[in-house]
Amino acid sequence: MDDGDTINELNSSSPLDQISHLALDIGGSLIKMVYLSTNREKPVDKTQNSSSKDNLLSGRLYFLMFETSKINECLDFISSKQLHYRGVQQNGFPASDNNTIKATGGGAFKFADLFKEKLGISLDKVDEMGSLVSGANFLLKSVPSEAFTYVNGQRNYEQIDHNDLYPYLLVNIGSGVSMIKVDGDGKFERVSGTSVGGGTFWGLGKLLTKCKSFDDLLEMSHQGNNRVIDMLVGDIYGGMDYLKIGLSSTAIASSFGKAVLDNKELEEYKPEDVARSLLRMISNNIGQIAYLNALRFGLKKIFFGGYFIRGHAYTMDTISVAVDFWSKGEAKAMFLRHEGFLGALGAFTNYQLVEESPFTTMDDNRYPLVEDLNDNGIIECRVRASS
Amino acid sequence: MDDGDTINELNSSSPLDQISHLALDIGGSLIKMVYLSTNREKPVDKTQNSSSKDNLLSGRLYFLMFETSKINECLDFISSKQLHYRGVQQNGFPASDNNTIKATGGGAFKFADLFKEKLGISLDKVDEMGSLVSGANFLLKSVPSEAFTYVNGQRNYEQIDHNDLYPYLLVNIGSGVSMIKVDGDGKFERVSGTSVGGGTFWGLGKLLTKCKSFDDLLEMSHQGNNRVIDMLVGDIYGGMDYLKIGLSSTAIASSFGKAVLDNKELEEYKPEDVARSLLRMISNNIGQIAYLNALRFGLKKIFFGGYFIRGHAYTMDTISVAVDFWSKGEAKAMFLRHEGFLGALGAFTNYQLVEESPFTTMDDNRYPLVEDLNDNGIIECRVRASS
Repeated sequence: MDDGDTINELNSSSPLDQISHLALDIGGSLIKMVYLSTNREKPVDKTQNSSSKDNLLSGRLYFLMFETSKINECLDFISSKQLHYRGVQQNGFPASDNNTIKATGGGAFKFADLFKEKLGISLDKVDEMGSLVSGANFLLKSVPSEAFTYVNGQRNYEQIDHNDLYPYLLVNIGSGVSMIKVDGDGKFERVSGTSVGGGTFWGLGKLLTKCKSFDDLLEMSHQGNNRVIDMLVGDIYGGMDYLKIGLSSTAIASSFGKAVLDNKELEEYKPEDVARSLLRMISNNIGQIAYLNALRFGLKKIFFGGYFIRGHAYTMDTISVAVDFWSKGEAKAMFLRHEGFLGALGAFTNYQLVEESPFTTMDDNRYPLVEDLNDNGIIECRVRASS
Repeated sequence: MDDGDTINELNSSSPLDQISHLALDIGGSLIKMVYLSTNREKPVDKTQNSSSKDNLLSGRLYFLMFETSKINECLDFISSKQLHYRGVQQNGFPASDNNTIKATGGGAFKFADLFKEKLGISLDKVDEMGSLVSGANFLLKSVPSEAFTYVNGQRNYEQIDHNDLYPYLLVNIGSGVSMIKVDGDGKFERVSGTSVGGGTFWGLGKLLTKCKSFDDLLEMSHQGNNRVIDMLVGDIYGGMDYLKIGLSSTAIASSFGKAVLDNKELEEYKPEDVARSLLRMISNNIGQIAYLNALRFGLKKIFFGGYFIRGHAYTMDTISVAVDFWSKGEAKAMFLRHEGFLGALGAFTNYQLVEESPFTTMDDNRYPLVEDLNDNGIIECRVRASS
């Protein structure tokens, strides 16, 4: 495999960019990838001496996702793009170790031998929780309009005060869910978690609906009605509220509880309705456990990340309503535009390449890297090109 | 229908007993019934003057369960036993209102018209949360060896110190789950709950396994292995622990997560394994949310009730382990022998008949009222027969 001559044709966004510094987050269900594309023609700051020790180059961070069960697609992609050979120093741009890439998530351990065997590269393992935190801190401090609340179907972007960021609760919804109390850069503790996460939604959803993919399942949930199969307070109370304890007749008393009473087989339910109940059950449960942990440590800000969310309106709405309901409005759920890539971004920051500021996020529609990435866009950045 | 002549033949345990004071807890999935059987031959205390205002009779409380979807079976039972006509005063025994029975749960509202129409009786509605608390307090204060912990497959009966009972957290697992902070007789607050409860286990379990009944599903879970379909930490980490955050390789990272990776249809999994994963997911989740609420209010004692548990070893074990794991041994899960009947017992106590002490619980095996009631036995009691 060539390691330099074909670079130009490999860059999907511009034939003149150099692609490098691949970082991976290999989770139980999904592999998240971040890599850097730098313009090798011109330093970003013409006033700086190009031979300076701290020459800054403009760059872009790109985001990709693969299914862990199809890890060969990921290997093929890396191989075809020769992403792992991009360490060759060019234009004053620093080399990453030729044969090593930063990787986090359990798969960094599980698939280490596979990467060595198929691509001849070593995975430099970065702690999973530490990566999630680094990734979140990086986004919150460096990317404008990264965080937003979701209320009544509207995204409201939040201005994050860097001096008032900590402490916060980071809830990362991957296959499972980790809840991390973050007190500063590198200062954090995993305080809770739940096994009822994205893998549960996808796994149970697959068994119940025969969906073809995670996106297929999400799309179905969008079309469904959870009241068909969830047992509501009104179903138990004959249409009445149970106001004494603050439960309206439309509150869900028992997720999937109506299936107990119905004399119906799985096939007689619309898969859309089943998907909707499942999404609501899991989103609500995560929101509740997150709130209880935020309460425990007096944390007012809860950031939800992880690929489970995928900018999906109903998911965010359910989580937001759950946090609002249980906290009686005291705590608020916030989401991140690059939610799915916290771990991969955190591993990437271990290359210690990027300047913290200024960063700008490009208009997403200009760079639709992967169509189903929803709102997750390319991040424009400056990278330190120390020679 | 006769209202007195046939009483003798109606009493299943002794032809000489009088059956009366029916109380119902009509939930979303199950109807729980408690009624009293008093010996009408002899007052319990011969030294007492039988004309005394507070004559005490010996009695027994019986427990029965019906499925809410088969409410006609319940109506037929009441009708055939003429339980609702047992208010006629006999032997100095006080009458309950001829045409009224105490009832709690949402079904007391939903099915009020049905009871009126079919049996000609009114349901005297008793608040659901209040009934659960009354029932639990009654059991904890009056029935010896009612509460127990479950550790390593062993029941350890707890001596409850009446002066040190409050506060405690009552977790009632019905179709949905209610979590109630109890501070004394009639002093309580529903502080939390979750829609992921017994109805979820049964409803989802029915869809996934085609089980015939709740007991069928529980029995299947007993035979299954959750590791077939749950994604363990070791599955993600290539067999390794993630000790840095205290997760062993055998911890469940994602409930049902393995179904994401497996290229299998629902039918290719053993229903036993599916049932096991489902039971573990729900039990663990309830244990975790219960612990977080106990922590919030500084409660050391958590009593779990509700028909979901049914004395099932694996359910109690999972809940116990969850509370122990999350609390790092600080809190302990306790169970109640008459777990499924808290609401019905609470409604029953509204008749204000029973003496608080002394009570004795008979050897369960001597009175196996319903075979699948497991450990739930008849309660021997004294009732106040004020004339």
